[in-house]
Amino acid sequence: MPQGIPAVVPDDGLTTRQRRNTALLAVHTGNGKGKSTAAFGMAMRAWNAGMDIGVFQFVKNAKWKVGEETAMTALGEVHARTGQGGPVEWHKMGSGWSWIRHGDQAEADHADQARAGWTEIARRLRAETHDFYVLDEFTYPLGWGWIDVEEVLEVLRERPGKQHVVITGRRAPAELVDAADLVTDMTKTKHPMDAGRKGQRGIEW
Amino acid sequence: MPQGIPAVVPDDGLTTRQRRNTALLAVHTGNGKGKSTAAFGMAMRAWNAGMDIGVFQFVKNAKWKVGEETAMTALGEVHARTGQGGPVEWHKMGSGWSWIRHGDQAEADHADQARAGWTEIARRLRAETHDFYVLDEFTYPLGWGWIDVEEVLEVLRERPGKQHVVITGRRAPAELVDAADLVTDMTKTKHPMDAGRKGQRGIEW
Repeated sequence: MPQGIPAVVPDDGLTTRQRRNTALLAVHTGNGKGKSTAAFGMAMRAWNAGMDIGVFQFVKNAKWKVGEETAMTALGEVHARTGQGGPVEWHKMGSGWSWIRHGDQAEADHADQARAGWTEIARRLRAETHDFYVLDEFTYPLGWGWIDVEEVLEVLRERPGKQHVVITGRRAPAELVDAADLVTDMTKTKHPMDAGRKGQRGIEW
Repeated sequence: MPQGIPAVVPDDGLTTRQRRNTALLAVHTGNGKGKSTAAFGMAMRAWNAGMDIGVFQFVKNAKWKVGEETAMTALGEVHARTGQGGPVEWHKMGSGWSWIRHGDQAEADHADQARAGWTEIARRLRAETHDFYVLDEFTYPLGWGWIDVEEVLEVLRERPGKQHVVITGRRAPAELVDAADLVTDMTKTKHPMDAGRKGQRGIEW
């Protein structure tokens, strides 16, 4: 698609370059496929631009989405070896957040684990640790009330520098949609599971 | 998302394993972001599963989507060096299809170039050259009548073995949607260009 011409030029006192370099908050929601996949595709593009990538998956099962993790980790290794692209960190709730000692997590329930994940992400956003964050399946702990949406919006609003954040998951809270710069609704039109097919490796995970 | 239980078990005489291993035709359409990005995210996952990847971009400008190309090419190099993942080929109409001599293309208009791209893809599908094809922005030459939709559907229907195909672009023809196994409509809810922002490197390309 062409880069295009903005539909309106806002009266915000910023130059085109300043607006262009604004940190982006994107939300991929809806009941269709491609929410996480498009976020990881964006991460691949950000990697190429030399950005520091942090992926945080709020999934219960450590086996989900292994394909993207392995590929993005391989890109992180390319960076470490040759300097091409940027570094990649990938963290999953399902296998226990890597920064927490395993013994401490055994006790924690999923809500506690989700909150621990958000606490660390908030710390990193304040510290400008990464350039590009994927908060995968993050809408679920928000929707279940495990993590306070207002607190998340405040941390996002006040994040320093130029840190891009992409949040995925169904039923994104309305306040999050309001706060986002880019919202895409992935709508299921047709899915092979409707025809009785099951997922297959390399396609579904 | 969980791998889930099929909604219906079809009466097609196939085992679950046979259905699982069926080649997939996916279409990403709609006016929102993420159609191509999700296709490249799928390619990343397919790469990790060791599939042979062929990407064919029906774009006029060779500068589009450079980020994904570089990252996927880096993954192809990881495969060549270490055996991890699968090989990656990336072809673009905008820079002249790589398999055609440059002198021959200078004469060709965009419709001829698009047809030459499809002819090569059809040849590869019949020869089982790749395991996973991305036909990026392919709906446009279909919609403009440059390439015959019925011919495309016939080649796809009769493709041998297990070759997955993902087609992206706005306004996917109805016959293609009917033939596809997986159709996702990326719907624009909100886009920064609406607020007067322009695209930025690592985010838009």
